Amino acid sequence: MGMKAVNGGVCAAEGFMASAAAAGIRKHGRDDMAMIFSEKPCVTAGTFTSNVVKAAPVQWDKKVIASGAAVQAVVVNSGIANACTGEEGMQACEAEAKAVSDGFGGAVPASSVLVSSTGVIGLQMPMDKVKDGITELVPKLSHDEASATAASKAIMTTDTKNKEFAVEFTLSGKTVHLGGMTKGSGMIHPRMCTMLCFLTTDAAISKEMLQKALSSDIVDTYNMISVDGDTSTNDTCVILANGLAGNTEITAEGEAFDTFCRALHTVNETLAKRMAADGEGASHLFEVKVVSAKSKDEARTLARSVVSSTLTKAAIYGRDANWGRILCAMGYSGAQFDPDKVRLYFVNDIGKIEVYKDGTPIAFDEDFAKEILSHEEVTALIEMHEGDETATAWGCDLTHEYVDINSAYRS
Amino acid sequence: MGMKAVNGGVCAAEGFMASAAAAGIRKHGRDDMAMIFSEKPCVTAGTFTSNVVKAAPVQWDKKVIASGAAVQAVVVNSGIANACTGEEGMQACEAEAKAVSDGFGGAVPASSVLVSSTGVIGLQMPMDKVKDGITELVPKLSHDEASATAASKAIMTTDTKNKEFAVEFTLSGKTVHLGGMTKGSGMIHPRMCTMLCFLTTDAAISKEMLQKALSSDIVDTYNMISVDGDTSTNDTCVILANGLAGNTEITAEGEAFDTFCRALHTVNETLAKRMAADGEGASHLFEVKVVSAKSKDEARTLARSVVSSTLTKAAIYGRDANWGRILCAMGYSGAQFDPDKVRLYFVNDIGKIEVYKDGTPIAFDEDFAKEILSHEEVTALIEMHEGDETATAWGCDLTHEYVDINSAYRS
Repeated sequence: MGMKAVNGGVCAAEGFMASAAAAGIRKHGRDDMAMIFSEKPCVTAGTFTSNVVKAAPVQWDKKVIASGAAVQAVVVNSGIANACTGEEGMQACEAEAKAVSDGFGGAVPASSVLVSSTGVIGLQMPMDKVKDGITELVPKLSHDEASATAASKAIMTTDTKNKEFAVEFTLSGKTVHLGGMTKGSGMIHPRMCTMLCFLTTDAAISKEMLQKALSSDIVDTYNMISVDGDTSTNDTCVILANGLAGNTEITAEGEAFDTFCRALHTVNETLAKRMAADGEGASHLFEVKVVSAKSKDEARTLARSVVSSTLTKAAIYGRDANWGRILCAMGYSGAQFDPDKVRLYFVNDIGKIEVYKDGTPIAFDEDFAKEILSHEEVTALIEMHEGDETATAWGCDLTHEYVDINSAYRS
Repeated sequence: MGMKAVNGGVCAAEGFMASAAAAGIRKHGRDDMAMIFSEKPCVTAGTFTSNVVKAAPVQWDKKVIASGAAVQAVVVNSGIANACTGEEGMQACEAEAKAVSDGFGGAVPASSVLVSSTGVIGLQMPMDKVKDGITELVPKLSHDEASATAASKAIMTTDTKNKEFAVEFTLSGKTVHLGGMTKGSGMIHPRMCTMLCFLTTDAAISKEMLQKALSSDIVDTYNMISVDGDTSTNDTCVILANGLAGNTEITAEGEAFDTFCRALHTVNETLAKRMAADGEGASHLFEVKVVSAKSKDEARTLARSVVSSTLTKAAIYGRDANWGRILCAMGYSGAQFDPDKVRLYFVNDIGKIEVYKDGTPIAFDEDFAKEILSHEEVTALIEMHEGDETATAWGCDLTHEYVDINSAYRS
């Protein structure tokens, strides 16, 4: 299958536009609102946080998507999460959707507008600023790459890098695009989905198949990253499909669906890894790959436990091949396994080093290990020797900067 | 019931002795081995880590206690955990127990000696040093308080304070003592028990009732503390009862058993809180008290989730009343509850401040909140308004020093 990366992020797909605005919700005078708009109403699917405490926009978006409304516009702000804000928070979502609808002269129904927020929990939305922001966002909408990039930057909070990616592929002889933007740097330990992720495609696909593709793909992408073990109240991942590529609509499983899923997976995995690498304060992308496990579930459980271990993350920061902490994190993960069958390696572009085998430590070259661990990306490869299943998780190291950021975030 | 705190730690109970020695297992030339000895063989109970990867001494001690052997001696080292060390690690335990037996001229059977280790995972025990240490420990055994304190200091790793405590109480007209020492500062998130905790008592009690008292008490003491979410491979909590107080032996539930359990709880809760307050790099003891919950299990789940939340811990370090992170951690805990019924306060000796009520934020005096959070102990009081159950968890803040300690621990 021909698939290639292309520029344009959420604007890579035909008919999608984006814009950004500085509404003054965050203090810094930088862009803090973004809009995504499709010329044609979209088939829409979404996945949201499993946190019992759900932010108002999550509750709003779940209703919009469940209603089957054809979504044309998404408005997002950073700075305030609109979570734990009670009835006033829900009214803010409604007022935002109404303001977007008004911005399009009523052509877009308020009941089809998606609303998303990220930032401090427990503050009410400054609605005057938000409405002014929306008034600015609508006329600035544009198809160009720069607008997609501006939108992806406007939704950043403690992120240090904007994260957007898109691919081009073929479905029933038509060129199709799928792109996305995401943010997430702290409070990242998705159980259903990631912090905020917006995907756009010009593929023609039914709502049922779109939701199926999204729900099954997040399990091995966004649900496999962790920055700090805190599952957010605002996790949102939505995909809009406007069908403008003109391919035969995907309405069932089969080759075309598989092709679409592969494209979706490429975009999601790329964005998920970038999110992990840009975890708050991170100096390493830390990948944990579990192979030859008894079951897929067990492989995922082991990989997630290691990538989330505070002590392992601190060791990676210290470029210390302290593999005992990895065995320890595997042991308390809940998975049942025989420690005597495990083999453990550190590996990346610099090289590969074996540190543990058959229940006992292996003498290894500490200098070479330090060299491997000094690279900005490092993989802990864990062989279980109990089956054929594999899972990969992504995270980052625990650094002084993480503590700086999070002890001073709200103030 | 009359119960009072007394000095003497593990030597407070009649017939118990302790000693410490510098065996050179750690680098610093400070004491790194400790021994506890009872003049009379003891009824013994223990609880151990639930980690699938169990250190060799944990496996050894479980066997000794299961065998019903009357324990007279416990030997402990810091510096090396003897975990992930395979067959050689198990042989080291046996050799240590044999060396202790030899130290007493064979009067203490090797099969009744408890062995315990804490430190780096994945290194083999330096048996020559260990044996020399044991040779030094035996003749130094003494009943005095200073020996108990020296033993409690010898088992410290990254701990900054030694942790020992004892109480005196009455059973069937006899004066009884129960004391303990504990260590634990990192890799603290006990699921069965804490890192290392040794309790001694001169009470007369059957093995069955002793195990029952210990197993039920750790649920609300050691199992309710968390420093970093990592459950160790070495968690061990044992209690030795030599019966020298001369009380009527406790062989069933009833008033005497309840009295004993209250004394045990006082010692365990005190040591657990000290362990949390002395978490690696900690500048705050952070207490989370959940009240009016639907069930005891749910209260425990909520309290543990909040006390373990990385983001909440960083906010406490920053003296930031960022209560949204607490609601968030409650929400992903797995407990089902109605966020709109929750009320949240910060409280300690400085004062009490309400921050969240009925689903919405409450305006509060930020300066006063900062004053409360600047105190070295702070409690998050969470009212659920769904029932009558209560649970308390203890932890500490996430600081720069934690990262310092753990990015450089092994090297």
